[in-house]
Amino acid sequence: MPILNKDMSLCISLSGRPSNIGTRFHNYLYEELGLNFIYKAFSTEDLAGAIAGVRALGIRGCSVSMPFKEDVMKLVDEIEPSAAAIDSVNTIVNTDGHLVASNTDFEAIATLIKRHELNVEHSVLVRGSGGMAKAVVAAFRDAGFENLTVLARNEKAGKELAQKYGYEFVVSDPAPGHQILVNVTPLGMDGAQAEVQSFSDAHIAAAEAVFDVVAFPSQTPLVIAAQKAGKPVITGAEVIALQAAAQFEKYTGHSLSDEQVARASEFSRQ
Amino acid sequence: MPILNKDMSLCISLSGRPSNIGTRFHNYLYEELGLNFIYKAFSTEDLAGAIAGVRALGIRGCSVSMPFKEDVMKLVDEIEPSAAAIDSVNTIVNTDGHLVASNTDFEAIATLIKRHELNVEHSVLVRGSGGMAKAVVAAFRDAGFENLTVLARNEKAGKELAQKYGYEFVVSDPAPGHQILVNVTPLGMDGAQAEVQSFSDAHIAAAEAVFDVVAFPSQTPLVIAAQKAGKPVITGAEVIALQAAAQFEKYTGHSLSDEQVARASEFSRQ
Repeated sequence: MPILNKDMSLCISLSGRPSNIGTRFHNYLYEELGLNFIYKAFSTEDLAGAIAGVRALGIRGCSVSMPFKEDVMKLVDEIEPSAAAIDSVNTIVNTDGHLVASNTDFEAIATLIKRHELNVEHSVLVRGSGGMAKAVVAAFRDAGFENLTVLARNEKAGKELAQKYGYEFVVSDPAPGHQILVNVTPLGMDGAQAEVQSFSDAHIAAAEAVFDVVAFPSQTPLVIAAQKAGKPVITGAEVIALQAAAQFEKYTGHSLSDEQVARASEFSRQ
Repeated sequence: MPILNKDMSLCISLSGRPSNIGTRFHNYLYEELGLNFIYKAFSTEDLAGAIAGVRALGIRGCSVSMPFKEDVMKLVDEIEPSAAAIDSVNTIVNTDGHLVASNTDFEAIATLIKRHELNVEHSVLVRGSGGMAKAVVAAFRDAGFENLTVLARNEKAGKELAQKYGYEFVVSDPAPGHQILVNVTPLGMDGAQAEVQSFSDAHIAAAEAVFDVVAFPSQTPLVIAAQKAGKPVITGAEVIALQAAAQFEKYTGHSLSDEQVARASEFSRQ
């Protein structure tokens, strides 16, 4: 029997349509590490009231998902560069009523660019124009990449994204030749477009590295094709694991090994 | 391992100095009954923010203790007669953002007066002038008792309490002769005054029933002496069990047997 107690720290998530993944991921690791924490997903129709509750009840951490990632910015006390860079928050840490917002998706992508030693001289082609594409483009800009092209069907969003960070925009696939390919669309994700390979074999052949942000599954058609072509690959599973570990560390002060993250991720998806 | 999930209903308590009792009591029974609930005690320095959080996060139930029992009244949507009678709330139920406040201490005392068939023609002597004494006096008045005396060292509070409900006040022990004796002071409670018998043997001998609201321990010197004298007794353990069961039922919709309450109470004090 779980012996809950009054001194447990509570962490929560706020999203329009909560999934069970965060709740299972965090509680699995609290249990494994013997931390006196609990985590539970919430939705709300009153974001300001929910954040007032986070403060007043001393809720330690609050993960933020759609549609609250932008609106929550005006409700916190401090915004870290990771969130300011993309006007989007996915993590709030509450220390004695002082709320600090950050974005661990941005942090994870920045870390992966470094960890995989992507070459700052290379040209980058990013497919997508949503919130995560913004995190990707901003992270490449921050890492010093000067030659980047945004490719998106949504001309308005794509143009806006490219202009915001001083890059080029194209609405249809350019000729092969970019050295780093990044997919930040749902192409290849479980669902209607699971079979779609988000960049052609010719684009892959011309590239030096391939990065797919899709995490479910992480073996997308793009990743499989890139591996077959012998290209270095970064997967969405790495992004998700890194960002979740970063949130966990911000809330609890405990670092996680890759192996712990992998086990908790597997448990969380069951 | 406890498998927490996103759909769990959260109930909380708000108090100045949280104990572990409520957290253990409720979670014990959630587990036993297989209810998808969790319960955790909180404190706060911002009551309005905490109640905003209860609404915005859909927290199902909120137990209220000192020092919030009166201030919370202006933050809810509806006040039941049990709370209105004594201007004191210990229970809030949140149904789709509509907060209904009640007082299960008052309800428990009213129920015990009926269950033990206390005679409405009898004279009542109530020792005490705090919040719980208010609940006791109001419950006797609602049950139709006309002859009641409030006995309290605190002259201001005692007088105010007696006058509020149209009763007599005395500052020192009257002669034996009251037919129902009720102790609502800490006399006999674990601590500095554990050995003190709150009414004399002569008072007990003249009485028809003895009611001690002290619950820790429930076998107070008063209760022991009354039992020895062969008098019918109502204990603080009955009050606490009834009020806790009433809260549990309001939050979850599940009634508890006396045996379940007794087991959970025992667990909660460990």
